[in-house]
Amino acid sequence: MNPEIESQPRPRVLSGMRPTGALHLGHYHGALKNWVRLQSSHDCFFFVADWHALTTHYQDRQSIERNVYDMVVDWLAAGIDPEQATLFIQSRMPEHAELFTLLAMSTPLSWLERIPSYKDQVSRPNAEGATYGLLGYPLLQAADILIYKAAYVPVGEDQSAHVEVTREVARRFNRIYSPDRAILPEPQELLTETARLSGLDGQKMSKSYGNAIAMRDEPAVVEEKIRTMPTDPQRVRRSDAGDPARCPVWPLHELYTDAQTRADLQQGCKSAGIGCLDCKQPLIEAIQKEQQPWRERAADYLANPKQVHWIVEVGTERARAVARKTLREVRAAMGLNY
Amino acid sequence: MNPEIESQPRPRVLSGMRPTGALHLGHYHGALKNWVRLQSSHDCFFFVADWHALTTHYQDRQSIERNVYDMVVDWLAAGIDPEQATLFIQSRMPEHAELFTLLAMSTPLSWLERIPSYKDQVSRPNAEGATYGLLGYPLLQAADILIYKAAYVPVGEDQSAHVEVTREVARRFNRIYSPDRAILPEPQELLTETARLSGLDGQKMSKSYGNAIAMRDEPAVVEEKIRTMPTDPQRVRRSDAGDPARCPVWPLHELYTDAQTRADLQQGCKSAGIGCLDCKQPLIEAIQKEQQPWRERAADYLANPKQVHWIVEVGTERARAVARKTLREVRAAMGLNY
Repeated sequence: MNPEIESQPRPRVLSGMRPTGALHLGHYHGALKNWVRLQSSHDCFFFVADWHALTTHYQDRQSIERNVYDMVVDWLAAGIDPEQATLFIQSRMPEHAELFTLLAMSTPLSWLERIPSYKDQVSRPNAEGATYGLLGYPLLQAADILIYKAAYVPVGEDQSAHVEVTREVARRFNRIYSPDRAILPEPQELLTETARLSGLDGQKMSKSYGNAIAMRDEPAVVEEKIRTMPTDPQRVRRSDAGDPARCPVWPLHELYTDAQTRADLQQGCKSAGIGCLDCKQPLIEAIQKEQQPWRERAADYLANPKQVHWIVEVGTERARAVARKTLREVRAAMGLNY
Repeated sequence: MNPEIESQPRPRVLSGMRPTGALHLGHYHGALKNWVRLQSSHDCFFFVADWHALTTHYQDRQSIERNVYDMVVDWLAAGIDPEQATLFIQSRMPEHAELFTLLAMSTPLSWLERIPSYKDQVSRPNAEGATYGLLGYPLLQAADILIYKAAYVPVGEDQSAHVEVTREVARRFNRIYSPDRAILPEPQELLTETARLSGLDGQKMSKSYGNAIAMRDEPAVVEEKIRTMPTDPQRVRRSDAGDPARCPVWPLHELYTDAQTRADLQQGCKSAGIGCLDCKQPLIEAIQKEQQPWRERAADYLANPKQVHWIVEVGTERARAVARKTLREVRAAMGLNY
């Protein structure tokens, strides 16, 4: 190995995704595109957060099982390069559970009870009673991050509190067990450009809203989904002038269409010079074009399912070596290294 | 192996002890003596509960580290036979942490919040704020028990609620993930004859009260401790009549001295016929006699510390084989067996 490269390791990034179904364009533009960008400049550890999925969907075993490898294929399709990034499955790493258990001992209950996402989940109408695992979810996430001594964690808008509690957990651990040398470095948030995509009905794109375009939807399916999208509700007839500001299709144009075309479409809409299908056509084409390399890569991997398993296997063992090293340090610091 | 024995396996018992210091006579009569009794009739798994100790003493790393092997020596000294029983250390079993994490997902928070020992600990004056680990302690214990599919758990008077929650956790897991075949059998409490020993001051014998006789105290130390024990406070002079009912020494006689001698001592005390040192002498001798084989066995093991490590090593691997098998079943039932 080149010693110059070795001496300046890429800073480590950790990120996970729950296997809650086939990934859609919202996942791509909200997270995956950023992962692809990061993988060459950072030492990226990307994991399937199947235990996280159980914190909220513990009765729902079938869907988790089915979706794990499907999601890894989506990652690879999007351009995640297993030579550059380490891909693994959380539930294959008992090391995370051990660190979670050890960190539980010194983590005040109050830190977890006050986290907004928890308070939000237990206060929803019809919320089932909270489980011990739901309350502990941010601590499990802290273990996921700290066991790899990740320098950076890409965060969505609602996850800032989770990285903050991870930092607090690390700080407290270091103070109690290792005051002279911080064993668990505090991770930083990685603020990166991501887009929040709206779905077929103008709400946030989400599988549970039924308003998503899957990353691997066939071209004809994409065309059908866009063509049947509602548009400006005040443009009832072709001859009515419309307003992109009221149209659910418009936010997608803002992501997919260049400024010049957008200006033309806007003018055409407001003057009733074009119909809604005319407006949708360049969007359909842009999405189909974006999906094309994904479908091609996915086809390769789907033809070689063993290769996907092998990629995960290699990633899991690479991650395990790092996790075990940290755990040895943690156990020694806690006086458990007999 | 004899197939007849194989076809009727001994029912499995699981029990653990926290490594909180050198064991004393209270530990022996309250638990260890019972373990020795059980080991021939049951398939006993006995473990050093060092993670449990962290749920309440997480800042106290040095004492845990020092005491683990010391305690195993005390067990062996008491007559635990490593050929019959499986001895291991909890923190060497990440499998317990994994099952704890998995069970956390389906365990309602309210089950843990209502457990008396937890409510008691957090409501004490000067109690530090509860940690996530303290709240989860009964669930960790449930994982300890269920991972070995233990049929029986010897319980102290205050642990009934813990076995009950273990049964509830198992029942819920089976109902959600394995309705046709109970993967996690519900353990039964094993009610056994144990004695609650009073210490040198008449309170319950406890290391933290400073009123204990260690299992391996030297004969001269035992003699000194008993000789300086307070007696009936109303018997000020040798010529005053005393009353065993008021004397802190008497409960020890009830455990250590035969009925005839006790009758003689009682008569001698009440008539001022004997002095307190006369009364204490048979007790000193009885305790020294009980300790003699312990000291002899301990001396052998202390001369061969590698043997103790080897015993724990073998026990840990034996336990791990059982734990891994259960975990495989649990993962498969939860849909995590990819």
